[in-house]
Amino acid sequence: MARRGLLLILSSPSGAGKSTLSRRLMAWDPSLRFSVSATTRAPRPGEVQGRDYYFETRAAFEAMVAGGQMLEHAEVFGNLYGSPRAPVEQAMAEGRDTLFDIDWQGGQQIKQAMRDDVVSVFVLPPSIAELESRLRGRAQDSEEVIAARMAKSQSEISHWAEYDYVIVNNDLEKAFNDLVTILQAERLRRDRQPQLADFVRGLNREFSAR
Amino acid sequence: MARRGLLLILSSPSGAGKSTLSRRLMAWDPSLRFSVSATTRAPRPGEVQGRDYYFETRAAFEAMVAGGQMLEHAEVFGNLYGSPRAPVEQAMAEGRDTLFDIDWQGGQQIKQAMRDDVVSVFVLPPSIAELESRLRGRAQDSEEVIAARMAKSQSEISHWAEYDYVIVNNDLEKAFNDLVTILQAERLRRDRQPQLADFVRGLNREFSAR
Repeated sequence: MARRGLLLILSSPSGAGKSTLSRRLMAWDPSLRFSVSATTRAPRPGEVQGRDYYFETRAAFEAMVAGGQMLEHAEVFGNLYGSPRAPVEQAMAEGRDTLFDIDWQGGQQIKQAMRDDVVSVFVLPPSIAELESRLRGRAQDSEEVIAARMAKSQSEISHWAEYDYVIVNNDLEKAFNDLVTILQAERLRRDRQPQLADFVRGLNREFSAR
Repeated sequence: MARRGLLLILSSPSGAGKSTLSRRLMAWDPSLRFSVSATTRAPRPGEVQGRDYYFETRAAFEAMVAGGQMLEHAEVFGNLYGSPRAPVEQAMAEGRDTLFDIDWQGGQQIKQAMRDDVVSVFVLPPSIAELESRLRGRAQDSEEVIAARMAKSQSEISHWAEYDYVIVNNDLEKAFNDLVTILQAERLRRDRQPQLADFVRGLNREFSAR
């Protein structure tokens, strides 16, 4: 029996390093597939169809939801966002793992749909001061926007205890190593190595042939 | 809430590299505690009380079993062997992990007694030819003794699917890295980091104080 790919869910408040960790993990293991979200919002300059998002009409998106073709979806400020199921199932069948950079609501929906195939990791910031300074550092946003982001961060953090693993991102190198360690260990779980049943049958044939 | 130490059970047929892996893991992390077995058999030359075994009289051993002071025990060729509970519980309370080099029967009894605190790892040999050559290489044993060991190995291997993780020891360095990876990842599991509840309360106080 061949190995089935697992689904690695990475969540954190924005500013805690999740995107950097995702990018580094994708570079570390080229066999990983990144789950690209579908959305009904208009592309922004520079965004590429299929790389940044699958841009869909609302009618097409809603048809996918109705047909069970979204693993999770949500409406945010009037736009729909979701994770298409088909590429995930294809990767699983090929034995490739899929990485989701996703919030707690999406993570929870995927966990409900895919159960034991899901491994979920929450990244905590070392402090709120650090989180805020990263949020401020990367854009010239108004105080209102910053305040809204911080409120969203607090709400996201309140779901940390629903995850399988938790990493505190005090140090990016350490946090990245922790993430790699989690993925490697999950691949060593017995129930993720169904091909070992054949291997052990081979060992038993060797015993019998002695 | 402080971290509670976990119990790492390592099993394999003899000759698959379990003892070498145990020794290297103990050297890698000096905070680990190795579970020394108790036994009623007589000490052999060079064996040290408390390092190789806790040598006990049968009466003392049986009193420990009756008092629930053995996590697991079994009788082998007329001698009793077991894992004393008290040092394990002390290590757990100190947040130190305990390593057990133990067979499937002992592992199963510990799993039943300690449930979610247990992480179990089975080490498979790359082949039976390799297993036999390691068994023959290390002692001048009679064919009968070799045959008995091989039969015990086959029986031990038949329990591989009862473990949380499985490592195939094709290469000792790789197998050792796998073992370290499993221990590190298990330490990152949310339910093994109860101290994070305090940490997140601190983050929430920081949010409130903004």
